[in-house]
Amino acid sequence: MTNITEQLQKLRLDYSKMKLSEADIDANPIKQFETWMTDAVNAQVNEPNAMVLSTVAHGKPSSRVVLLRGVADKHFKFFTNYHSKKAEHIEHNKNACLNFFWPELERQIRIEGELEKLNEAESDAYFKTRPRDSQIGAWASVQSAELKSREELEEKVIALTKKLEGAEIKRPPYWGGYALNANYIEFWQGRSNRLHDRIAYELKNNEWKKFRLYP
Amino acid sequence: MTNITEQLQKLRLDYSKMKLSEADIDANPIKQFETWMTDAVNAQVNEPNAMVLSTVAHGKPSSRVVLLRGVADKHFKFFTNYHSKKAEHIEHNKNACLNFFWPELERQIRIEGELEKLNEAESDAYFKTRPRDSQIGAWASVQSAELKSREELEEKVIALTKKLEGAEIKRPPYWGGYALNANYIEFWQGRSNRLHDRIAYELKNNEWKKFRLYP
Repeated sequence: MTNITEQLQKLRLDYSKMKLSEADIDANPIKQFETWMTDAVNAQVNEPNAMVLSTVAHGKPSSRVVLLRGVADKHFKFFTNYHSKKAEHIEHNKNACLNFFWPELERQIRIEGELEKLNEAESDAYFKTRPRDSQIGAWASVQSAELKSREELEEKVIALTKKLEGAEIKRPPYWGGYALNANYIEFWQGRSNRLHDRIAYELKNNEWKKFRLYP
Repeated sequence: MTNITEQLQKLRLDYSKMKLSEADIDANPIKQFETWMTDAVNAQVNEPNAMVLSTVAHGKPSSRVVLLRGVADKHFKFFTNYHSKKAEHIEHNKNACLNFFWPELERQIRIEGELEKLNEAESDAYFKTRPRDSQIGAWASVQSAELKSREELEEKVIALTKKLEGAEIKRPPYWGGYALNANYIEFWQGRSNRLHDRIAYELKNNEWKKFRLYP
């Protein structure tokens, strides 16, 4: 056994902080999501709105962390570059899933659904709230394209900063939001001896059907 | 804007802890992985070996947290129930990806490849290292099947514990390991103004080709 494998096999936490029961959970999974997200923010977990977004290209999954920026109805919103690899995947296959994991609370949320682009007004409004340097960054990055060197990127940023000095920075046409329209949401609470609580909701005929799963 | 959206839009961290440069990174991504994993363990990040595993079924991605239990060569190993939903997905489509996110270190690792089952001896050996109550849990759970109530599961565990008292607990035939055989590994270090460092490795003709990506 290699040294790293030994290290990995020694890591073992037994989850015992909380339970999740049918009596506690909201009939509406969006409300339940808001409760858990608020708990995560209040508990000051690291990056509570960081979620792993998975997409599919040519039958292969691909995942990366993005930041949740809004929830409306059953739509979960984030912003990105429409020329990125993930956007290319979404162009061909709208199916996606989101995964939140908050080890501090021994909680996980899994969301599945279809992605759609946000309208331009909503992307404009959000872009305006970003710090100026991040706005410039959005103009400087050709997301996921190969980059010769860090210096090339930094020189681009310096040149753009100079060029745009004093001017309002508009949203690049290739930058904007997506919303995942959820049809499956699962709440996972870690429990002792790997006997975790899992309660899932599936959208059927516009109604959320709730059920418990084996861990 | 709803209350939760307001909360989400207020969350903003600028990443400024570290850099990732071509000069620092190992030519072999597996060695680099071991370095970063060891850093994560030493920094006592929450659940350093927790990773989001994504699989695909009927063109739709699905993801959940699993724990990395070993690395050998370019194989990343974890254990699960072979009757679970994810095992069903893997049966039909071996493509998968792994995502590690360590917000404490502002780091992310993305790994893509194909899954294969570990041999029985390796699954047996690992099963033996699990705490007895987790071993019983593996016999009690019909993973991802619908469960009528928490009580039903707990009664099963009590009955099994009694039945197996004093006996060695064998690995259930439907429980064992997988290894993801990596062909793409990306190291992501958060940087200021979203101008993150991304260095990726692709396996081509049995050699790792390294390149930098736009953030």
